[in-house]
Amino acid sequence: MGVGVGPGDPELLTLKAVRALASADVVAHFAKAGNPSNARAIAASYLQAKTLELPLLYPVTTEQPTDDVAYRGAIERFFNESATAIAAHLEAGRVVAVLSEGDPLFFGSYMHIHVRLMNRFRTEVIPGITAMSGCWSAAGLPIVQGDDVLTVLPGTLPQTELVRRLRQNEPAVVMKLGRNLPKVRRSLIESNRLANAIYVERGTMQDERMLPLAEKSDDLAPYFAIVLVTNRWWQS
Amino acid sequence: MGVGVGPGDPELLTLKAVRALASADVVAHFAKAGNPSNARAIAASYLQAKTLELPLLYPVTTEQPTDDVAYRGAIERFFNESATAIAAHLEAGRVVAVLSEGDPLFFGSYMHIHVRLMNRFRTEVIPGITAMSGCWSAAGLPIVQGDDVLTVLPGTLPQTELVRRLRQNEPAVVMKLGRNLPKVRRSLIESNRLANAIYVERGTMQDERMLPLAEKSDDLAPYFAIVLVTNRWWQS
Repeated sequence: MGVGVGPGDPELLTLKAVRALASADVVAHFAKAGNPSNARAIAASYLQAKTLELPLLYPVTTEQPTDDVAYRGAIERFFNESATAIAAHLEAGRVVAVLSEGDPLFFGSYMHIHVRLMNRFRTEVIPGITAMSGCWSAAGLPIVQGDDVLTVLPGTLPQTELVRRLRQNEPAVVMKLGRNLPKVRRSLIESNRLANAIYVERGTMQDERMLPLAEKSDDLAPYFAIVLVTNRWWQS
Repeated sequence: MGVGVGPGDPELLTLKAVRALASADVVAHFAKAGNPSNARAIAASYLQAKTLELPLLYPVTTEQPTDDVAYRGAIERFFNESATAIAAHLEAGRVVAVLSEGDPLFFGSYMHIHVRLMNRFRTEVIPGITAMSGCWSAAGLPIVQGDDVLTVLPGTLPQTELVRRLRQNEPAVVMKLGRNLPKVRRSLIESNRLANAIYVERGTMQDERMLPLAEKSDDLAPYFAIVLVTNRWWQS
């Protein structure tokens, strides 16, 4: 079972997600090795003391282009081992909830477990509020209306691809910033859209930070920070 | 205050939305004249008996291209009058929650109230699970991963525009079906993507219906039905 825990504010879990966490036998959560799990931190107050926890620790960062061969090998092994560990619990008759920041099937790690187990076990996915919804809501920014087209771009794309998409001059969201932020900034400049870009870090959390990207003086960003690109009037 | 009530399953409201509805003095909801409000139906069990209700009844359908002049005039008047009715409650010191199916600032009617009142009153937006998240979760379909780009297309676009976007051969979501479904189907055929299209009607609701669009024998669809376009393997 994939459970979306939303963008960061623990109040933004759905009733369904909270009930699923209360009744799960095992709660699995992804994190970089050596770091606490963001998804677990969001859901912490809904976990039962008796619930088993299964941390799934990434051996590598996820900020790299996915065409790197060594990276792909390491990540494939990691997802295979994670799926095997979860399958053991499922075979023992336990209900396993896999936490996902945001929405499980929208750039979520859960999907890699899902595709490995869906033919052997009954799966269920509980959607979550995406980081981008959390961010445009926090910004009070109507991102799309009427005939608008929304494009969601991972910051891992090559600069030429980012520029080509951003040049369409339509509403866009750029995800997966982290070390990609300098490239994303160059792409926004090259496509003449930097003035339309709003940077949101830790959206919906207590230490949320939001400012025009043009006013952000450094290129440091967490992986889960987001850039909203809008042609609409906006004020912070 | 805009409150997202999610795609249909009342369990998919967030804790924050449920608390906001319990504490609001007035709950406003949009509907076509003569129809019950879908958003109100989703949220019904969370409304208090003592809460005032303010139905906002569309004089026209929203399935038309927004460049129709008579349509634009009627809809502008409607949003102005709705904002005025809400402002009267806000000036009397009441907290007003405006219900939105899905997410308030993602193709939601609430945004038209938001932009009219945001300079005069304190606004807050509580995000909701989008219809598309509800649909791909119900389908168990990993919609985007890695370097994928997601494009969200309103079915109100001209066929040439739909075809041009769908030809990019990337994951896409087509919203606002209703009377646009025949055109959307023709666009998928012309872009050679009909075999990749999954039709979802009343996603996450008890009478949810999901099938490959190629197997749907008629072109009847509710306005809120969705087509998911994916190159991934999928089975119902």
